[in-house]
Amino acid sequence: MSSRPQAHDYLETLACSACDREHDPRQIHTVCRECGHSLLARYDLRRVARAITPDEVTRRSRGIWRFRELLPPLAAGGGPDLGAGDTPLLPLRRLGERLGMPHLWLKDEGANPTGTFKARGAAVGVAAAAALGVRELAIPTAGNAGSAWAAYSAAAGLPIHVVMPVDTPPPIKAECVAYGADVTEVDGLISDAARIVNERAARSGWFDASTMREPFRVEGKKTMGLEIAEAFDWKPPDAVLYPTGGGVGLIGIWKAMRELDEMGWLDGPPPRLIAVQAAGCASIVDAWEAGAATAERVADAHTVAPGLRVPLPFAHALVLRAIRETGGTAVAVSDDELMAAMSELAESEGVFACPEGAALLPALRRLLDRGDLTREETVVLLNTGNALKYTDLMHATGGSAA
Amino acid sequence: MSSRPQAHDYLETLACSACDREHDPRQIHTVCRECGHSLLARYDLRRVARAITPDEVTRRSRGIWRFRELLPPLAAGGGPDLGAGDTPLLPLRRLGERLGMPHLWLKDEGANPTGTFKARGAAVGVAAAAALGVRELAIPTAGNAGSAWAAYSAAAGLPIHVVMPVDTPPPIKAECVAYGADVTEVDGLISDAARIVNERAARSGWFDASTMREPFRVEGKKTMGLEIAEAFDWKPPDAVLYPTGGGVGLIGIWKAMRELDEMGWLDGPPPRLIAVQAAGCASIVDAWEAGAATAERVADAHTVAPGLRVPLPFAHALVLRAIRETGGTAVAVSDDELMAAMSELAESEGVFACPEGAALLPALRRLLDRGDLTREETVVLLNTGNALKYTDLMHATGGSAA
Repeated sequence: MSSRPQAHDYLETLACSACDREHDPRQIHTVCRECGHSLLARYDLRRVARAITPDEVTRRSRGIWRFRELLPPLAAGGGPDLGAGDTPLLPLRRLGERLGMPHLWLKDEGANPTGTFKARGAAVGVAAAAALGVRELAIPTAGNAGSAWAAYSAAAGLPIHVVMPVDTPPPIKAECVAYGADVTEVDGLISDAARIVNERAARSGWFDASTMREPFRVEGKKTMGLEIAEAFDWKPPDAVLYPTGGGVGLIGIWKAMRELDEMGWLDGPPPRLIAVQAAGCASIVDAWEAGAATAERVADAHTVAPGLRVPLPFAHALVLRAIRETGGTAVAVSDDELMAAMSELAESEGVFACPEGAALLPALRRLLDRGDLTREETVVLLNTGNALKYTDLMHATGGSAA
Repeated sequence: MSSRPQAHDYLETLACSACDREHDPRQIHTVCRECGHSLLARYDLRRVARAITPDEVTRRSRGIWRFRELLPPLAAGGGPDLGAGDTPLLPLRRLGERLGMPHLWLKDEGANPTGTFKARGAAVGVAAAAALGVRELAIPTAGNAGSAWAAYSAAAGLPIHVVMPVDTPPPIKAECVAYGADVTEVDGLISDAARIVNERAARSGWFDASTMREPFRVEGKKTMGLEIAEAFDWKPPDAVLYPTGGGVGLIGIWKAMRELDEMGWLDGPPPRLIAVQAAGCASIVDAWEAGAATAERVADAHTVAPGLRVPLPFAHALVLRAIRETGGTAVAVSDDELMAAMSELAESEGVFACPEGAALLPALRRLLDRGDLTREETVVLLNTGNALKYTDLMHATGGSAA
């Protein structure tokens, strides 16, 4: 059985990531009411460090709520628990040999409910929304966030409106419909879906759970960083490669490492965070290469990987800050490269990674070539989901008739 | 990181499930060389009980190899580990309220690698095959076993031949092809695929890893039973409902409970095991209702659920014995009922269960109606996989354009 969460209260405030203005965490918020930037949860980390030990957290039964003192408090009885978190960290033995890297790992987020890392954000986001009295949710999505939020909303008994591009992979739409979500398709990108949600939310009183416009989703994603640190016995790996669409997970891992560091749990510096994007939609890579602290919207965003088809992450400044503060970097790969990597990962390691996760493999080769990583370093590839939602992309051939 | 297996040796013999003839577990075997029935691994359970404690097993890091003393020994370095096992056990709160059942649970095997319970059998089966020096594998499949074995074979670097019905869901075929398996499609059922594998294996020296014709797959499936007992603090639930195609998992759970009982770990009787089948393919239900100890092949097997489309499980006598010995029963549901249950589970609990797993919900209602279960009992529904492979069945409708 999963670890049942308990109500607790180490959450002090929601502080604006840009102007630092504080907001009461016991009230419903989206972005900073002063400047419109993302809010980040701030905990009393000294009290948390006195309340729990690393060993105690490790001994608790599986799932993200093992880290409950570093998550927002819940309504009595807890939010819906579909089993998110504690995904496997797999040694990539055969690829490691091929690349001369003895310490290469893949964290496989495909093991989450709904098959992707989005379940972590949804688990915490929906639980927090329910605890705060939200009655109706709305979310724009490139796909996977939509089905994850639809699943948790169903389990919580909350209605949800999901707005997605018309070219979202059909299995994802089928999931959302099965969960009973109200699905709207738009002839455009996730940015167009976001605009529609924003307008309708204002009109209809829906709670807009868009990426980084809602403060608790990133707390759920943070658990990826907490688990990575724990898996390496609190001595963080040298680098984490992360496929960057909205960038919430990358910000989450950065936040996790900062909090653990402040609690005195880390034995060594946080990992260098490396954002990987598709060449046709590389706002963060472009900004990084230009040495800019903020990014610009990509005019003609295109890539086969739906999760990377984000013209400009809402929290682009935070993504760039996380890369900068950890000594990371950013790199783009072509669609051909990432599609070929899906096959290479499956054939050599038995991991059926989504196109976004597969993009990390050609990125890794590029980083080794240009000296941003060395072969002896401990490196984690964060595969964000299972490729089962994307088999339409793969033009399966190769079977023969008996 | 997953718990790394170590070589060990509590496995004493492979005993025939029909004639009890013993076979050396350090050699490659399929079925009993005397009578052709399934072999079952037999361990020195007294030594195992002296070597480990329940608490020790619970403290080990996640995955099926936590139970390594009750699994076949591995080659040095261990078999490939893709993270199978330790799937979530979810309370079905909303359905439980609807049915008046306060202790209703679902074990969600969709969290396994390749999205189904088949990963458990493949993890142990491929590891054992590799340790015994098998060089080439072959497997007939209704779908999910094929992709699970293809994934683990890829990770182990072993070639595999997968033979599947031509109407296997396309995402499953795409998985197998991505993993580099040699895929053959047959215009028939899994029984026709089995015949082809059997013939070619004899001719080409492939190892035939068909259901219950290979002794270690059931050992992997056994971990479901071990985890269920552990999750309830070694006091087993009253009943487990299991969707029965080949029946390996049901036999595995029965075997797990017997072994735990013999080790003195169980606080209470094993759960009643309840086989659930589709009305169009119900060999076990028919035999059970006739009071027979063996089952007959269904002539015109048909159901939308690929995993239930098995005209006669090879180990039908063992399935019936497991039901009988635990005081269980067998029940069939219609395709309409199981398809409706997919939506009901998704909408009410946020669980996107495969058609086979969804079949358990109408079966549960029938069992309550006819008094085979009471509402106060602790009941586990074993959902064997994620519905993402089956969205073609669901005719997703319901989205609207913006």
